[in-house]
Amino acid sequence: MSFSPLIQQLIKSLRCLPGVGPKSAQRMALYLLEHDRPAALELAASLHEAVERVGECASCRTLSEVSPCGICTSSSRDRSVLCVLESPVDMLAIEQTGGFGGYYFVLKGHLSPIDGVGPDDLGIDALVERLRGGEVREVILATNPTVEGEATAHYIAEQVRELGVRVSRIAHGVPVGGELEFIDGGTLAHALAGRRSLN
Amino acid sequence: MSFSPLIQQLIKSLRCLPGVGPKSAQRMALYLLEHDRPAALELAASLHEAVERVGECASCRTLSEVSPCGICTSSSRDRSVLCVLESPVDMLAIEQTGGFGGYYFVLKGHLSPIDGVGPDDLGIDALVERLRGGEVREVILATNPTVEGEATAHYIAEQVRELGVRVSRIAHGVPVGGELEFIDGGTLAHALAGRRSLN
Repeated sequence: MSFSPLIQQLIKSLRCLPGVGPKSAQRMALYLLEHDRPAALELAASLHEAVERVGECASCRTLSEVSPCGICTSSSRDRSVLCVLESPVDMLAIEQTGGFGGYYFVLKGHLSPIDGVGPDDLGIDALVERLRGGEVREVILATNPTVEGEATAHYIAEQVRELGVRVSRIAHGVPVGGELEFIDGGTLAHALAGRRSLN
Repeated sequence: MSFSPLIQQLIKSLRCLPGVGPKSAQRMALYLLEHDRPAALELAASLHEAVERVGECASCRTLSEVSPCGICTSSSRDRSVLCVLESPVDMLAIEQTGGFGGYYFVLKGHLSPIDGVGPDDLGIDALVERLRGGEVREVILATNPTVEGEATAHYIAEQVRELGVRVSRIAHGVPVGGELEFIDGGTLAHALAGRRSLN
C-alpha cells in the first residue's frame, strides 16, 4: 500500500523543488493536505502566475514581470559602471550589501560548450551592443569563481577590452571573518597572488 | 531593491511548506523560474487537484480521494485487528514494515483540550461505533509516545475495554540497532518497565 494516486502525484511534483527528497516531499504533501489547504491553493496560484508572467528585463536580463525592471529604470544610479553576473540571485546578494550603485547585466548562466551554451545564449552580443553606447566606463565581472565562471569572465574581458572600456574582476581571497586554518588551498593561493600593497 | 512583486509573492507562498525558510524559498523560486517552468506548472496543477479532490476515507479517516480507500476495500486483510494511529504518515510507516495485515483507523491528531480538540474531533465516536459491529477482536493503539499521544491512547483504551474488546499498546523501548549509551532516560525507563520474560 501507499498513498492514493493524487497524493502520490503531489509528492512526485514536490520533488521538482531543489533540495526536496522523497521524505520531505511526503511530509510537505501531508502537511498541506492535513493542516493548510488555503496555503496550498495560494502556492498553486503563485506558481501559475509567476510562470505565466515573469519574463526577463530587456535591459539587464534579470527575472522580472516588468521590463525594464526596477533597477534599470532607476535614475539615481551610476550609469558608468556595469556589473556582470551569472544569475538574478547574485544580483540580489550584491544589492543587499548596499555597496554598489551601478547597473547590472545578468548572463543567466556561464559559457559551457559541452552543454551547448555559447556567448549568444548568455546575451554577450547584447552586452557588447550596450557598451558601444559609450555610457559605461567600467565593467565589473562578478561571475562565480568556478572554472566556467572564470572562462566566461575571460571571454567577456577580451570583448570589453577591444571596445576600449575598463574591465575589472571582483577580488577573490580569504572571506572576511574566515580563519586561514580552514580556508582551502585554491582560495589561499588566490589571496596571496591578489595581495594588495599597504605602502 | 529586491525581486519583482510576483517573484516575491512566489517566495512568500513557498514558505508555507514545512522546513522551508526564506533562503530555501528564494532558491526554489529562482530555480523553478530559471530552469524548470514545466515542473512548476505541474506542481501548481497537482496542488490544486489534490486540495480540491483529496478528502478522507469514510471508514478509516485517512487522506484519500476515493472513499473507502484502497486498504479499507481490500478483502485479503484481517478484519479482527484494528490499528489506531495519529496520522496518515504513520499508516504508511506501518504498511512499509509489511508486518501488519489488519485494518487501520486514523485519528488525525490527538486529544488536546487546550486547542479544543476533543474525542469527537478525532472520530472516537465513529471508532466505538465500528467496534460495536463485533468484527474487531483487538485494537492496537499506535499513537505517538508523547504526552498527548499517551493520553489519547488511555482515553481510547477505556472506551474499548467497556465494549469487551481486547486492547493493546505498541511497545516502547530501545530502538533496534540503537546503543543503550545514547538512548534517553525516558525510553530506557520504558524499556526496563516493559521487559519481556525469556523463560
